[in-house]
Amino acid sequence: MSGGVTAPRGFRAAGVSAGIKANQGLDLALVVSDTPATAAGVFTLNKAQAAPIVVSKDHLAKSGGVARAIVVNSGCANACTGDEGMRAAHEMAAETAKLLHCPVEQVLVASTGVIGVALPIHRVSRGLPVAVGSLAANQGDAAAHAIMTTDPFPKQAAASVAAGGGTFAIGGIAKGSGMIEPMMATMLAFVTTDASVPKGLLDRALREAVDDTFNAITVDGDSSTNDCVFLLANGASGVAIDEASYAAFVGGLRDVCRELAMGIVRGGEGATKLVTVHVTGAASAADARRCAKAIANSLLVKTAIHGGDPNWGRLIAVAGRAGVDFDQARAKVTIGDIVLFADGAPHDDRAPRAAEYLKGKELSVGVDLGVGTAASTVWTCDLSAEYVRINADYRT
Amino acid sequence: MSGGVTAPRGFRAAGVSAGIKANQGLDLALVVSDTPATAAGVFTLNKAQAAPIVVSKDHLAKSGGVARAIVVNSGCANACTGDEGMRAAHEMAAETAKLLHCPVEQVLVASTGVIGVALPIHRVSRGLPVAVGSLAANQGDAAAHAIMTTDPFPKQAAASVAAGGGTFAIGGIAKGSGMIEPMMATMLAFVTTDASVPKGLLDRALREAVDDTFNAITVDGDSSTNDCVFLLANGASGVAIDEASYAAFVGGLRDVCRELAMGIVRGGEGATKLVTVHVTGAASAADARRCAKAIANSLLVKTAIHGGDPNWGRLIAVAGRAGVDFDQARAKVTIGDIVLFADGAPHDDRAPRAAEYLKGKELSVGVDLGVGTAASTVWTCDLSAEYVRINADYRT
Repeated sequence: MSGGVTAPRGFRAAGVSAGIKANQGLDLALVVSDTPATAAGVFTLNKAQAAPIVVSKDHLAKSGGVARAIVVNSGCANACTGDEGMRAAHEMAAETAKLLHCPVEQVLVASTGVIGVALPIHRVSRGLPVAVGSLAANQGDAAAHAIMTTDPFPKQAAASVAAGGGTFAIGGIAKGSGMIEPMMATMLAFVTTDASVPKGLLDRALREAVDDTFNAITVDGDSSTNDCVFLLANGASGVAIDEASYAAFVGGLRDVCRELAMGIVRGGEGATKLVTVHVTGAASAADARRCAKAIANSLLVKTAIHGGDPNWGRLIAVAGRAGVDFDQARAKVTIGDIVLFADGAPHDDRAPRAAEYLKGKELSVGVDLGVGTAASTVWTCDLSAEYVRINADYRT
Repeated sequence: MSGGVTAPRGFRAAGVSAGIKANQGLDLALVVSDTPATAAGVFTLNKAQAAPIVVSKDHLAKSGGVARAIVVNSGCANACTGDEGMRAAHEMAAETAKLLHCPVEQVLVASTGVIGVALPIHRVSRGLPVAVGSLAANQGDAAAHAIMTTDPFPKQAAASVAAGGGTFAIGGIAKGSGMIEPMMATMLAFVTTDASVPKGLLDRALREAVDDTFNAITVDGDSSTNDCVFLLANGASGVAIDEASYAAFVGGLRDVCRELAMGIVRGGEGATKLVTVHVTGAASAADARRCAKAIANSLLVKTAIHGGDPNWGRLIAVAGRAGVDFDQARAKVTIGDIVLFADGAPHDDRAPRAAEYLKGKELSVGVDLGVGTAASTVWTCDLSAEYVRINADYRT
């Protein structure tokens, strides 16, 4: 299904320029449900939490999980900004609520950009009426653009699901390119559905879907102060989700979240290749995930893949130091479907074939730890000189 | 004190070209004690251990901690090479022992280079007599060169220590530039002393010195299959170390190891700046070390420092996600001695001063976690596009 956050019925969006970004790009986004929607959120586990994270958590709790709107600015994270930052986040929510004639606790707030710089709240205030004025069911694309920072392209996804005696839609937008490793979410993503979903099921579905998607990607192993994923369900399709239709709902939600998460990795800062890391034969699911993350974050693995170098020894070296159960005599290393190490012995004669495979843009590498049956899949991108260039002068 | 591994009396060294490296550079090193020396070793904790690591551990155990020689090749790690690799490592030790007329278990072996490629043992065998023939007390420099891989310069250090009723020397050589984060040592280092040190004290001294030096550096967070540090004490100075003079010995040893470790960081792949990371105010020493390592390994911190960007928010974001106790309201962030965040509020107006400071080549950054009194110091380097270039085509 095409479209993004406005694909489900009863949602409108807007993306405008409020002058927060120096380059006058789109930097203020609104996602609004025509009626109060059931709302769920997952937030960064970073102990340094930005003001909008604190405010949105508080609003979700006070409203009992009901939201009308999500207001987001890019160009400034409003993180580590002290009392002034808290006042700005509150004001951003309050002005949105006033313009939409809804209770302030039904507004969720998010920010993304540089940490430690004050949010120019007067610019947000000037931009908000413009954003509200341009709210429309065909402005999801503008909203997707307005939440971008270093993202090379906007991330949108939508799915149509037939379940619960009818058909409903799930749609979403996301941003994220650097400082990407989910301690739970790591980036911003806003997902909507026109199904009606009880609060308990909505929370459960979001946690489940995020764990296999946003939580399974990494660009650079860093995780931000501002990460959050919001999910709004407004029931406009007339379809009500219950335990019987829950699996279909979470399946559709996972599809949308995975597409958004893949978009983040594909658009990772400086990325030229999408890499799927499979770890199998692990003693536990936690071990499998830990090893897959270690491989996905290894600079040596990421640079070798960037250069198309079939340096499979780096994969086994990471597996060996990842702090998980590992049996070198029974371990296996694969690049694509080419086995380069098995039964304790190298097959380095196959390296040229692996080098040929690595010329592709969508790659997979695998390590079997040789000790059990648990597995995990993680997605990442290669590491290029362009990543360094982008991050060496982000502020300047 | 100038010199390296041959600064202490009674040690000779050699570095020759055996044709293991494609470029015909020096690739075979020997360090020999004229008399059997007391020997201690620390080894990588990587569960994928190279053949020479297995052999050297075995020899240290069988000899009861006595060694005459260390034989090292660069250009091939002899790791993940199966039974053939084990045979090659054994043969390398055996041929050295035969040439030196000593028991095979008094020879320690080390290798460094590409993982998973067979060691051309016939080249090692051909080179060994040449190396033995060129052993001399002034060839420490050649040995330091012969253990290099991507290192931009050799690492040597020596110290003269007056203690135990006389004067003795400690000297060492090290290699390491990428795949550098000590799970215990991470690189090769060979240290000699002409003091006489009982085996128990020698083991203790090596562990203590390594923990504050080689274990406190990181270039890229990866740790190799081949890391080891050997320490040989031959007593040629006539000075005997006991509990009374132990502190002076370990002090000198720490100085030598620190200078070698700093050399590794300064010569980190693509490095242009040496960065000291101080973490203070931690709940425990383990927390302090963990947070300092997380900061030192953060791509975003390393690239910002490379670009001279005073993006201090990245430091607090890492501290927040490092998995340690952290109180944002009491935390403090410093670049050099410039405080950029304290008491929950930013001092971003000082960023230009920090940018000026970051133009230097020897930098320090600090985070106070605001929860306790424990501290840790870790050394790292910046991350440049050159690192990517080096590692994207290491094999090719």
